[in-house]
Amino acid sequence: MYKVKVYVTLRENVLDPQGNAVKGALHSLNYREVQDVRIGKFMELIVEKSDRDIDTIVKEMCEKLLANTVIEDYRYEIEEVVVQ
Amino acid sequence: MYKVKVYVTLRENVLDPQGNAVKGALHSLNYREVQDVRIGKFMELIVEKSDRDIDTIVKEMCEKLLANTVIEDYRYEIEEVVVQ
Repeated sequence: MYKVKVYVTLRENVLDPQGNAVKGALHSLNYREVQDVRIGKFMELIVEKSDRDIDTIVKEMCEKLLANTVIEDYRYEIEEVVVQ
Repeated sequence: MYKVKVYVTLRENVLDPQGNAVKGALHSLNYREVQDVRIGKFMELIVEKSDRDIDTIVKEMCEKLLANTVIEDYRYEIEEVVVQ
């Protein structure tokens, strides 16, 4: 069994209106130290072992569904977990 | 200057309809190995140094705005960055 963590973030040059909105809200709560906020997705998947290579599967899932590669970057971490 | 990474995830006992929807979509793309999907938020903040303690500020921001602590857990990583 594998535990996969996927981080999907907007590319640097892509505007982040949601991040700007959160920054504005933090400023109104008097956290003026905050210079920038970028918001992305964090996904945790539990994936069963199979005859397919786990890295290939995860990369494909990111490319096909989990990230919009036109405007988003993704990275992932794969951890093998022992099932009791 | 600090770079802060915040991870907000639904609590274990909270239903994740979005995660279930993504799991269904992955299954329809023939990734049947996927057993579970949990979706959360990943935020990157740039925070200027001030006289306030950075850990206190980040914890307060999470508690007040970035996470809904009734149904979400949060964790964060603080990294000091040198500005050229």
